Amino acid sequence: MSSTFKSVAIIGRQNTADISKTLEDLIKHLQRKKIDIVLENDTAKILPDHKIHAVSREQLSEHCELIIVVGGDGSLLNAARTAVRQNLPIVGVNRGKLGFLADIAPDNINKIDAILAGEFYEEQRFLLATEMNDKDNAIVRNLALNDVVFLSCIAGQMIDFSVHVEQQFLCNYHADGLIIATPTGSTAHALSGGGPILHSALEAIVLVPMLSHNLSSRPIVINNESAIEVIFNNVDTADLLVRCDGQVQTMLHGGSVKIKKAKEKLRLLHPIDYNYFETLRSKLHWETK
Amino acid sequence: MSSTFKSVAIIGRQNTADISKTLEDLIKHLQRKKIDIVLENDTAKILPDHKIHAVSREQLSEHCELIIVVGGDGSLLNAARTAVRQNLPIVGVNRGKLGFLADIAPDNINKIDAILAGEFYEEQRFLLATEMNDKDNAIVRNLALNDVVFLSCIAGQMIDFSVHVEQQFLCNYHADGLIIATPTGSTAHALSGGGPILHSALEAIVLVPMLSHNLSSRPIVINNESAIEVIFNNVDTADLLVRCDGQVQTMLHGGSVKIKKAKEKLRLLHPIDYNYFETLRSKLHWETK
Amino acid sequence: MSSTFKSVAIIGRQNTADISKTLEDLIKHLQRKKIDIVLENDTAKILPDHKIHAVSREQLSEHCELIIVVGGDGSLLNAARTAVRQNLPIVGVNRGKLGFLADIAPDNINKIDAILAGEFYEEQRFLLATEMNDKDNAIVRNLALNDVVFLSCIAGQMIDFSVHVEQQFLCNYHADGLIIATPTGSTAHALSGGGPILHSALEAIVLVPMLSHNLSSRPIVINNESAIEVIFNNVDTADLLVRCDGQVQTMLHGGSVKIKKAKEKLRLLHPIDYNYFETLRSKLHWETK
Amino acid sequence: MSSTFKSVAIIGRQNTADISKTLEDLIKHLQRKKIDIVLENDTAKILPDHKIHAVSREQLSEHCELIIVVGGDGSLLNAARTAVRQNLPIVGVNRGKLGFLADIAPDNINKIDAILAGEFYEEQRFLLATEMNDKDNAIVRNLALNDVVFLSCIAGQMIDFSVHVEQQFLCNYHADGLIIATPTGSTAHALSGGGPILHSALEAIVLVPMLSHNLSSRPIVINNESAIEVIFNNVDTADLLVRCDGQVQTMLHGGSVKIKKAKEKLRLLHPIDYNYFETLRSKLHWETK
Repeated sequence: MSSTFKSVAIIGRQNTADISKTLEDLIKHLQRKKIDIVLENDTAKILPDHKIHAVSREQLSEHCELIIVVGGDGSLLNAARTAVRQNLPIVGVNRGKLGFLADIAPDNINKIDAILAGEFYEEQRFLLATEMNDKDNAIVRNLALNDVVFLSCIAGQMIDFSVHVEQQFLCNYHADGLIIATPTGSTAHALSGGGPILHSALEAIVLVPMLSHNLSSRPIVINNESAIEVIFNNVDTADLLVRCDGQVQTMLHGGSVKIKKAKEKLRLLHPIDYNYFETLRSKLHWETK
Repeated sequence: MSSTFKSVAIIGRQNTADISKTLEDLIKHLQRKKIDIVLENDTAKILPDHKIHAVSREQLSEHCELIIVVGGDGSLLNAARTAVRQNLPIVGVNRGKLGFLADIAPDNINKIDAILAGEFYEEQRFLLATEMNDKDNAIVRNLALNDVVFLSCIAGQMIDFSVHVEQQFLCNYHADGLIIATPTGSTAHALSGGGPILHSALEAIVLVPMLSHNLSSRPIVINNESAIEVIFNNVDTADLLVRCDGQVQTMLHGGSVKIKKAKEKLRLLHPIDYNYFETLRSKLHWETK
Repeated sequence: MSSTFKSVAIIGRQNTADISKTLEDLIKHLQRKKIDIVLENDTAKILPDHKIHAVSREQLSEHCELIIVVGGDGSLLNAARTAVRQNLPIVGVNRGKLGFLADIAPDNINKIDAILAGEFYEEQRFLLATEMNDKDNAIVRNLALNDVVFLSCIAGQMIDFSVHVEQQFLCNYHADGLIIATPTGSTAHALSGGGPILHSALEAIVLVPMLSHNLSSRPIVINNESAIEVIFNNVDTADLLVRCDGQVQTMLHGGSVKIKKAKEKLRLLHPIDYNYFETLRSKLHWETK
Repeated sequence: MSSTFKSVAIIGRQNTADISKTLEDLIKHLQRKKIDIVLENDTAKILPDHKIHAVSREQLSEHCELIIVVGGDGSLLNAARTAVRQNLPIVGVNRGKLGFLADIAPDNINKIDAILAGEFYEEQRFLLATEMNDKDNAIVRNLALNDVVFLSCIAGQMIDFSVHVEQQFLCNYHADGLIIATPTGSTAHALSGGGPILHSALEAIVLVPMLSHNLSSRPIVINNESAIEVIFNNVDTADLLVRCDGQVQTMLHGGSVKIKKAKEKLRLLHPIDYNYFETLRSKLHWETK
């Protein structure tokens, strides 16, 4: 926790016009602090006349030691795969209200200073790695920080599948789908599906069947070292969809998908006064009466 | 409840090879009883050499006083719209195990005799009528015995909508979708979504949000005389799907859908010893230890 | 809805010191309006030097045409049985924030004026009537506006019981308890137990098993004309507790309890701009993001 | 896993008459195998004319290397604290159907032979240790294999409490109670309360609020190394009940209870073909259609 950062890359939320003001404030602030800045290519397009070097996502690690994401949890989720693949730490400036992941408020931008100065709380959040075959039988791999979701391509169609954990048969399901979530993702879609909250530091994965036909189906929490396989029997697997973090979306062509903890971890930085439980209470409205 | 039936139409489950034996048994049984039989066109195709008059679904009422469905709840659901539109009573011979709707076992086929002789328990099950616009702004209407479901066409995408009841704003939702179910449908998909069981005779409708982002969203039960409107604001409604009984599927082109109790009712016949609670206990496995 | 009120009884929340200011404000306000006032006996004790006639709960109807409750939903619940037995309408001034039942804010006390002048929205809320035997085999009857709850006297002990509806066996349960709720009570404890919201005007009752051992148990909604019987077999019924609205509490001595819609209804008055859905949204935090 | 057992203690389920036949069969079987047997004192009382040495629970370890429990999960739960305190392994012969813990069927008693011969699968199940004060301010400690439950002594009364994890404030609750469960207990009462299944080998604890007033309360899963404190503010704590495994029951006199993983573990033996997932599927009826 003692490293300092002299160069940063900035990634802004796409598809929203109103992000540029916060980006400009952040850039000015960092320039005053003499921090080297690069902009991710798509983010550069949002800003006219910025005169800052723009690089592709794939090249960020050549130009910076830290990624600052301006947006919300969705933007940070999207940038997480880039950060993980290049082993860059990441911190989020939340454009709206407090997020689970992006926890620096735009009107509190000087919290960035402490982080740049090496005063931060670093979390190692694990990701899920999926492995399946494409239509040419080549192996396709993806990463998910929040969750991997299995669904029928035909919206609302139930699917039949079986889940195996460490090569042991767990259960057959007839359900709308299945959410496999990390602790990070346990407070996202899995929670709406009836899953529990997994403490962000827990080394566990939760499997949440969506609208299961069997009324005694329940979410199950397993160790994150366990290899999971979801097998689709007697189904035209071309009709199946695999979604990683709701963003990377793949048609399933083989009969199964393997999911396990990714080797890489996300280095997520927070202000030193970060409090996970406070975030839970705030985001989940536990203190409203 | 004192009418007798001298002519029946038979509708068999489609897309399964093994239904023909039960159909043949039923036909022989009815022929011995001198009952006039017509086959629905698609059902006739399943049976080779049957020599029985085959008619289209739309013409059934010209040839029969009762529809016998051979299949399961899905087949009966499918035939229900035909029955309702032609005001024909319907009874189900269940090819598998006991169904919620189709409750005569194939090995107990003589229970049909009592029904033909006028000894039966008749239920009037109400349906939902939906009304929306197609892409040419013409009005499209549909019926649902079980449920009307709203989803994104893009599987797994959350949707934003508001619900109005009797022109009063109920709530905004950000959710995977919405199930609006009759008592008949309350034991189907809505139950998997966390909805309550509505007694089959209750004059009520249940609204069940699917994986709602707001954790304090709950199913709500309203009178079935209430007109419901689901409005999709700030959404490309061409991306929205409306499913009636999981079968009739329509792309939404206008900004809203109106749902109310249909004028027609399904006349569902049961053996005289029918017991709704026994069906609940059996189908929902309430007596397993 | 056109009657006006010239005399009122005031009932204040018990056991809290800070209610007297609101009571004094209300009394002054009503005196200025030349409204005749009586105080319920226990409420009179809260107020020193009030010089207002105090009467027992049982005699309120001899002195007033309307009951005003100052407190919260709990106070109104408590006063409801009194109001119902004397056929007096009731209106609630909520000492805290908006309640489901008590919906006049203390800083908006002049909303009372419109109600006194006959401008109000009157709801008829039905109650549940329970009937059981005491240890001398005499019949004990109670009323509940919200719910009737069955529990073991030994906190946390599971109980075994069967439920019958209109003398038909519904189901055996092994559970922490059972909540039988009206629409009014459906937004109270039953909702925490996983029950649905029943629209306040719905003629229905919901049965919510508490922590049922059978994982496929679900809340069930039935018509409010249905007579319910809860039977405790093979149990020492002296260990059973029946709670009406969480307040009236009876040890069960016979083997069963009968529950049905009470003949009496609560006449609950609201300001003319009362909106049930708005109350739902506000109390259940449906609009927090 | 290679040890063999030459002496066993037998503990039978109490309060049921029909256990003696299984006990006698087991004793005869073990005597034929020349295994030394002692009976736990209360179990000895069930059996007339047995001529087997009877000892108190506290002395079992002086006379045996293994405890065999004849009964069900409840009996094994009860014996678990004895086994843990004396570091004796335990195996269960289930008198009814398959249990989660007691998994040898009485008609398959020779499965015991393999276990005695050292062929078994040994699980280390962790327990929860509670620490609180009694009315004389002395410290009271208890153990729970399944769960620790907090309730009002007054059945059905809601309680207010706050939970702290590793001395960090998690949340305030207004609820019927709180279940804190181990993975072993996650398939028991916590599951009925809406908690997830925790894989039996997961190093985690789940907190399940019971009928929480806040509708966005959710079960939360934390690492089992985390020290938990449940604090009762502004409550007469003499009205609070702490239940360990539903059996050991203590009135709370101080203002808080500390819960953490016990130092001791239960050594639970299973037949070598034990399959946890199969037990889940069977006990939770995941394969009924």
